[in-house]
Amino acid sequence: MARVKVAVMGATGYGGVGVATYILGHPQAELVWVGSGTYEGRRLDEACPWLRGRTDLVCVAQNPSQAAEAADVVFMAQPNGFAMDNAGKVLESGRKVIDLSGDFRIKDTAVYERYYGRPQTAPELLEEAVYGLPEITGDAVAGARLVANTGCYPTGPILALHPLLAAGLVTGEDIIIDAISGVSGAGRAKHALPFHFPEMNETLTAYRLGRHQHTPEIEQALGSARGEALALTFSPHLAPITRGILATCYARVPQEMDAEGAADRCRAELIQRYGASPFVRVLPAGEVPSTKATLGSNYCDINVFEDARTRRVIVVTAVDNLGRGAASQAVQNMNLMLGFGEALGIDQAPVFP
Amino acid sequence: MARVKVAVMGATGYGGVGVATYILGHPQAELVWVGSGTYEGRRLDEACPWLRGRTDLVCVAQNPSQAAEAADVVFMAQPNGFAMDNAGKVLESGRKVIDLSGDFRIKDTAVYERYYGRPQTAPELLEEAVYGLPEITGDAVAGARLVANTGCYPTGPILALHPLLAAGLVTGEDIIIDAISGVSGAGRAKHALPFHFPEMNETLTAYRLGRHQHTPEIEQALGSARGEALALTFSPHLAPITRGILATCYARVPQEMDAEGAADRCRAELIQRYGASPFVRVLPAGEVPSTKATLGSNYCDINVFEDARTRRVIVVTAVDNLGRGAASQAVQNMNLMLGFGEALGIDQAPVFP
Amino acid sequence: MARVKVAVMGATGYGGVGVATYILGHPQAELVWVGSGTYEGRRLDEACPWLRGRTDLVCVAQNPSQAAEAADVVFMAQPNGFAMDNAGKVLESGRKVIDLSGDFRIKDTAVYERYYGRPQTAPELLEEAVYGLPEITGDAVAGARLVANTGCYPTGPILALHPLLAAGLVTGEDIIIDAISGVSGAGRAKHALPFHFPEMNETLTAYRLGRHQHTPEIEQALGSARGEALALTFSPHLAPITRGILATCYARVPQEMDAEGAADRCRAELIQRYGASPFVRVLPAGEVPSTKATLGSNYCDINVFEDARTRRVIVVTAVDNLGRGAASQAVQNMNLMLGFGEALGIDQAPVFP
Amino acid sequence: MARVKVAVMGATGYGGVGVATYILGHPQAELVWVGSGTYEGRRLDEACPWLRGRTDLVCVAQNPSQAAEAADVVFMAQPNGFAMDNAGKVLESGRKVIDLSGDFRIKDTAVYERYYGRPQTAPELLEEAVYGLPEITGDAVAGARLVANTGCYPTGPILALHPLLAAGLVTGEDIIIDAISGVSGAGRAKHALPFHFPEMNETLTAYRLGRHQHTPEIEQALGSARGEALALTFSPHLAPITRGILATCYARVPQEMDAEGAADRCRAELIQRYGASPFVRVLPAGEVPSTKATLGSNYCDINVFEDARTRRVIVVTAVDNLGRGAASQAVQNMNLMLGFGEALGIDQAPVFP
Repeated sequence: MARVKVAVMGATGYGGVGVATYILGHPQAELVWVGSGTYEGRRLDEACPWLRGRTDLVCVAQNPSQAAEAADVVFMAQPNGFAMDNAGKVLESGRKVIDLSGDFRIKDTAVYERYYGRPQTAPELLEEAVYGLPEITGDAVAGARLVANTGCYPTGPILALHPLLAAGLVTGEDIIIDAISGVSGAGRAKHALPFHFPEMNETLTAYRLGRHQHTPEIEQALGSARGEALALTFSPHLAPITRGILATCYARVPQEMDAEGAADRCRAELIQRYGASPFVRVLPAGEVPSTKATLGSNYCDINVFEDARTRRVIVVTAVDNLGRGAASQAVQNMNLMLGFGEALGIDQAPVFP
Repeated sequence: MARVKVAVMGATGYGGVGVATYILGHPQAELVWVGSGTYEGRRLDEACPWLRGRTDLVCVAQNPSQAAEAADVVFMAQPNGFAMDNAGKVLESGRKVIDLSGDFRIKDTAVYERYYGRPQTAPELLEEAVYGLPEITGDAVAGARLVANTGCYPTGPILALHPLLAAGLVTGEDIIIDAISGVSGAGRAKHALPFHFPEMNETLTAYRLGRHQHTPEIEQALGSARGEALALTFSPHLAPITRGILATCYARVPQEMDAEGAADRCRAELIQRYGASPFVRVLPAGEVPSTKATLGSNYCDINVFEDARTRRVIVVTAVDNLGRGAASQAVQNMNLMLGFGEALGIDQAPVFP
Repeated sequence: MARVKVAVMGATGYGGVGVATYILGHPQAELVWVGSGTYEGRRLDEACPWLRGRTDLVCVAQNPSQAAEAADVVFMAQPNGFAMDNAGKVLESGRKVIDLSGDFRIKDTAVYERYYGRPQTAPELLEEAVYGLPEITGDAVAGARLVANTGCYPTGPILALHPLLAAGLVTGEDIIIDAISGVSGAGRAKHALPFHFPEMNETLTAYRLGRHQHTPEIEQALGSARGEALALTFSPHLAPITRGILATCYARVPQEMDAEGAADRCRAELIQRYGASPFVRVLPAGEVPSTKATLGSNYCDINVFEDARTRRVIVVTAVDNLGRGAASQAVQNMNLMLGFGEALGIDQAPVFP
Repeated sequence: MARVKVAVMGATGYGGVGVATYILGHPQAELVWVGSGTYEGRRLDEACPWLRGRTDLVCVAQNPSQAAEAADVVFMAQPNGFAMDNAGKVLESGRKVIDLSGDFRIKDTAVYERYYGRPQTAPELLEEAVYGLPEITGDAVAGARLVANTGCYPTGPILALHPLLAAGLVTGEDIIIDAISGVSGAGRAKHALPFHFPEMNETLTAYRLGRHQHTPEIEQALGSARGEALALTFSPHLAPITRGILATCYARVPQEMDAEGAADRCRAELIQRYGASPFVRVLPAGEVPSTKATLGSNYCDINVFEDARTRRVIVVTAVDNLGRGAASQAVQNMNLMLGFGEALGIDQAPVFP
């Protein structure tokens, strides 16, 4: 059977080259087209020399029509705003689009504009777009032409809190998500002074407190779990590691439940919810997730703790921000869209140590 | 004038050697005695080779009476439990004690026992002990014989939240403190597998969620600011850096105040409170503290942000956990106890980058 | 066709768990038996939690006869001395052995004893053992029952210098190999103070200068290339990264050749030698190898530079010390021994960034 | 007595801000003028926020005449080429200049041009300039108006090898210097993709092999020790740490000497040479220098090893590239030029861990 042809727009950024790398090793897909503004006309393995020996492809200009002509599926791994302008051309050609940007994640266009600082210019595509978080929205993804791949920060917290809210095990009034990310989340093109190795190394900081654009994405998904809108506080931090996001999520135990034992109840719910999932691991009681146990993989590790004195559950999640938080999750969505096995091409073991 | 003679018990751990190093460079103090169980009979600069050329002292057995005989001030930088058993002997000799452990920080002995897993065996010393956080309890420190040096995690959050609670700018009902520490907080003796470089490097994790022993220490200090006991959630995380603690503190704006503008109100209060302090820096509006800007120094950097939608202020603090979080703060307490200038011997610039 | 059954002795160390991980994903092999002294009776994924979801195996005692009974191929990833005592029992059962220790690498027993500080107690096995560096000794490996997997440091320098010495492009009189390794080379069990994160982080040092046990291993292999014994200087360094070895090798241009152009001649020879190899990459002229471009992979990257003024060529090689320097190279050897495709199960892309 | 007034041109780069920081804490000097092209018109502590609370100075345009007008001593911490064009104006005003660039380090202008790629346009200043390596050229520095501060890489190797060559304990024919630097050596302004945190983190590489501009600087100094020109190979490497240079130097034992015992002879010579020096530490036999033991200090640590089989001594040196390799060494030179105590203002303890 012929393999599915894949194009990647933005193939030399961290998200795009991640997708490209998975596709190069995918048994049912073939990487046929790579676009790059920065490296147009140069080989992909010149832009990304770690890929030497794995591909001969040459980067071409970021033309969506040409991508659509060459491929069955087009991944867009470009800055916010690109997919809004270009996904339509690909869809018109009957191809499928998986977008790794934030363009089609927020259904409320006013909220999108407030957090992203730009108008939503493709409302009809937005309506069609399916939010791509496989374990939560997998059924819709399977039938979609256009998927908005879940953001790096939201992936873990939504996977962890969605079932707990749906089951009424935590309330939605008082959620705080405090997350720490590795620096690759800044992207490859943004090599500015704050990310210069000597400045970033050995430091901890936070950014966009109270106004990060992943806030409404998490709120939208958790609101749908709860059946009612909610507002939460999301605080992204930066630590000097390359890959990984650890998110510590705080939520209240409902008044009618005993705060003692809340963690056990939540763990039981998550184990039931994700028992059959190849990629979500609920850890043994008491064991705190660590990002390194997921590095290079598509796993999301979760565990639940409690602070009964303050009636809080503390849910900790770990992902590789470039794997489950971006590229391998995008391929997982592709697998669902094309009816492939969910884990095809992305079942790598974590690289440890 | 003769310089004050100083002994350090536990001089080859990170806290103790930090104190020893500051005293070696202190214009009014002289390091005369260093105790170490591990390195007894060996030179301090053999145990801590970076000190070569700075001292000829030889480590001796950890005998508190001998320390008291040799010195005017005895720093105890030993595991929890040591100071309870040994501080009395030093005080009887008319010497002063500054303890870097948790032994004398918690006034409620039942709470101490619950969090530290051991009984408080020196209640009379506990009663006398002054909690040593210079900008908050400096007046009491000045008259004390026995000071319990503030813990590494509590330092930043207490310095930041104490004035805000005292001024009624935030409520005490709903505080969460989410902190990230460098690995040196684990101490030097604890070189176990989780801190083995290949296991710890490039990972993020959390520990003792809902039960860390610094929780009641923060609650006690903030409760006294507020005039009423409070319970909060404190979550310590680990990141692969050597030094530094970044603490992100969440608190609610009181119902009677406007949530918009809360950060400005809090910043104004902190600027007024710490304007004359040589070591607490309230950063310009919008600038997030980063631990590296404090590395190797006694500074505590603070700033305040807001999430008006959820009526929260987000207070971020940064310290060097071995400097302001341990050794230089201990020397700052010594300076106050002896009537020296507060900054004597500890006014080093941060090492950046 | 039934898959080959594989046992790993020492499955919870970095070398052993690496082999186990590759075998778990190998299309023609099955991991059936894992031995561990430290974790006997506990699940492999409890000892190595990043493997959760990938195996249910339980670690058993390190009994070679039981390993041989269970498996067709036994990997030994134990400290030096173990394989000498235990490989015989496995071979007697008609099974194959791949040893990751230094036990069978050095043919001269006096040299072995001098560098390893222990006698060679299995000389008959030593005679049979084949040195396992696939691109150099692959033919012999294919017919071997007992393979001594090449050491981490020697892999790159031998792959690079062997063809140059064989072709007479450099002399053997004056070789220096200066290598820098990540800390995982110290192994998992050795979590001592020097490798405690706060002590190892942000520092550069060297060790065993003039007496590292990989010196005679490199000399033996390069001597055989040259047809005559040689002595060289090998200096291992440590840098605070987890994985990776960068080796900078200095050799003289023969008197009869022009020093200008030496790098080009050497590169041409290496390109010809390794053009068909899936795992040795000779980089474009002028591009310096970096370890990160090989991380998580079986690649060895090589390039050649020159210092014509001093008539030296400078050959730089990069490998992942736990991949090509240990586990994936061991599986590559297994593939050759069993007649599988050389790259089966070990063709992962480097994880970048 | 009035303190000496100091200007720093290029005060917001790593070298310049290092000098500025030391001067701010110097008991006999006063920082009065800071120049910066990038941050002209903005406060120094805005460009370098870790200095908040330590200075109110505002950066001005890089005008040498104004610097000379304001100050007694002008440090130039600018890219290569700047001092050649501007030092003259300062000297004409009767002020002293300490230049941290390479402009005045190489006495042979043809060699300078070959390695630096630009002509030497100020030969008369070059003639006057004194190479500033305090323990070697201190007497000349004391009488100089213009000092060329020693480069970061050359500092350790020259301090170590100069006495050994002068004493005839090693030969000059066969020297190789293999050095590893932290990334701050790249400077602050060069925040390009290779130094972007995710690309630089966790990797080892080399650069400018056979052609680094510090090669002739080392050759010149060692040639003068030997009384005869020499050519050596110098290979700079990069490791993902912020500060520190470890240099491993290879030299041959003269034919007339026994190779066994060479390390002891060399150590004895160095101990005698540097016994009275406050900043050069010859470590106990067998102990390998590590950069972290010098971090934040002006120390240069040295030790000597041998490989008797190949008749080589292996000399290892460690410095903080921004301290002893740049800023604190520059202030040490200033102290000598002004007749101050050599260690004034730069006697900080290393920051460890």
